[in-house]
Amino acid sequence: MTHILPGATIGILGGGQLARMLALAGARLGLKTHIYSPVADDPAFDVCAAQTRAEFLDEAALRAFAQSVDVITYEFENVPARTAEVLEELRPVRPNPKILALTQDRLVEKQFIRRIGATTADFFDVNDLPSFTKAVETLGYPSILKTRRFGYDGKGQSKVTQHADLSKIFNDLGTTCCILEKFVPFSKEVSVIATRSIDGAFSAYDLCENLHENHILKTTHVPARIKQETAQKAFQIAEDIANATNYVGVFAVEMFIVSKQQEEIVIVNEIAPRVHNSGHWTLDGATTSQFEQHMRAVAGWPLGSTLRLGSNITMNNLIGSEADDWLKIMEEKGAMLHLYGKKETRPGRKMGHYTKIAP
Amino acid sequence: MTHILPGATIGILGGGQLARMLALAGARLGLKTHIYSPVADDPAFDVCAAQTRAEFLDEAALRAFAQSVDVITYEFENVPARTAEVLEELRPVRPNPKILALTQDRLVEKQFIRRIGATTADFFDVNDLPSFTKAVETLGYPSILKTRRFGYDGKGQSKVTQHADLSKIFNDLGTTCCILEKFVPFSKEVSVIATRSIDGAFSAYDLCENLHENHILKTTHVPARIKQETAQKAFQIAEDIANATNYVGVFAVEMFIVSKQQEEIVIVNEIAPRVHNSGHWTLDGATTSQFEQHMRAVAGWPLGSTLRLGSNITMNNLIGSEADDWLKIMEEKGAMLHLYGKKETRPGRKMGHYTKIAP
Repeated sequence: MTHILPGATIGILGGGQLARMLALAGARLGLKTHIYSPVADDPAFDVCAAQTRAEFLDEAALRAFAQSVDVITYEFENVPARTAEVLEELRPVRPNPKILALTQDRLVEKQFIRRIGATTADFFDVNDLPSFTKAVETLGYPSILKTRRFGYDGKGQSKVTQHADLSKIFNDLGTTCCILEKFVPFSKEVSVIATRSIDGAFSAYDLCENLHENHILKTTHVPARIKQETAQKAFQIAEDIANATNYVGVFAVEMFIVSKQQEEIVIVNEIAPRVHNSGHWTLDGATTSQFEQHMRAVAGWPLGSTLRLGSNITMNNLIGSEADDWLKIMEEKGAMLHLYGKKETRPGRKMGHYTKIAP
Repeated sequence: MTHILPGATIGILGGGQLARMLALAGARLGLKTHIYSPVADDPAFDVCAAQTRAEFLDEAALRAFAQSVDVITYEFENVPARTAEVLEELRPVRPNPKILALTQDRLVEKQFIRRIGATTADFFDVNDLPSFTKAVETLGYPSILKTRRFGYDGKGQSKVTQHADLSKIFNDLGTTCCILEKFVPFSKEVSVIATRSIDGAFSAYDLCENLHENHILKTTHVPARIKQETAQKAFQIAEDIANATNYVGVFAVEMFIVSKQQEEIVIVNEIAPRVHNSGHWTLDGATTSQFEQHMRAVAGWPLGSTLRLGSNITMNNLIGSEADDWLKIMEEKGAMLHLYGKKETRPGRKMGHYTKIAP
């Protein structure tokens, strides 16, 4: 069976704010959700019909979980390969886990992006100090040494500038599995939030323009202030990625825009095989939210309209103690506030966001 | 303490679609919900952080429920007086239960509406066949005999036309506690969805124009196609009701509009002390939904903007087997579908709704 019915249960791996917003969107469509997470007080547990608190490598728990749901999805790309393997034997996992292997490793990811004809930053595989030193000599300064796996929000990376102590940088990263990327002198960071349905239909929201602070997304502005033809290029890359991976669900492609004379060059940074922070504005600012869109795709249902509901939309993350201002934001006319129900406020932790829509 | 903090728990009496949508709106603001209902497979149980399945007169269960939450609200007006009494001893109940006594009895309700200076249909208290016969003689035909308590969606009422068998009508109603209302030859049915905050602020959404089929709401159109000054009168009545009852939360006032020459006369039909079906369009068509607005009010928080997000909005209920068309509606561009997750489709049962917004 390719599509499920209202009343069916979608299992979600992970229990953070993305899983929570997926569960809420599913409920809107009459779907139940079953949250699987090892973190006892994860916020998605508060809004689901069923829950499993277990490690991702607990195969008995995984099997019981799979048997209790109709289809499985995930809120994060670092799902262990073995986890996906166990689940796939019992139920459809969407998007199909091939995308995990591809996006969990920066080297494999960049090679894939180039294979489909898109541009990435120049990069070198780095495995030891000599290969690092050689790569730095070739790419020049500045460049960025990144772990191939498990990096996010600026974690697992280090900028390499002239006269830097290469040995220290390499050793501090804590792994020998790295990639050195040439720094991209971008004028803008943008993202495509796109969806591919089970029957191959492709749909994308308006291009998002993103502003990061301390490597964490701070603000998304929609539509991105770039040329229409540049946006078209970005959408085409996303569609190529989706088709090449037989993708089902929502995904994000983060891109740099480099301005060269009159031209805007699109450089792909990374792929996130899931709903994405830069798509949160769709909750209030689009006919169908990215969360509903993902649930529709995963359920095997038709995609909804991605129509933007305002001329200009801004989404601001509330990071760490910024969420303490919730009452002030709530009083602001036209600010649409979302809080994720996280028990503990920590520096750098995404606690909520708010959206403003200009009519 | 008058206001709670994000992360706190709101207890909700009742587990139907209204409770479900309240729970979803609460989650958006970082609130937890605890659903209390005697109906084991109620749809709100699928989206809450905690649940109690118990009868409304189970005082031990009520006390345990109250002690586990920070503030209590309800999704229906037929909360037994004793239930409210037990809960109020332990936690704030919002809106305050005085409104329940008032809205549970059509006679008391109509007397209250007249006391605050608004117009109702002419009516008589009916307790036996002689008082019924006398009331019919005075009010004329057609008129409507209604039970004073527990009527909804056309249940508990009977139309009285000329040559009707009064004895049969009276006996068939199954109670001697009735009210005879003169039929109102209305040109439109409208409703005000309004909110009063804990500090007395009043806010109302654009007036809703409602179409019923078989006594069940079928379609709501916003804004109602009536004169601006008539709408102002309707809002004033709602505000008077809210202030007179020291109300906290969302409520609906159902009204008839009678056209008399150039004039539009507003006649109050009934008050619903809760979120209301004719306000479902606010989920997609207003900056703040009625469900979020109610949760804000109950939490003691400031009210949100009621700005309408389109020139014309239509909400259609999916009643009984109409929900079988879910896939067709989902494919319709611009239709925003909501399904309530009810296990069983029954004739007359509200299974979902969809909203369309003209930009």
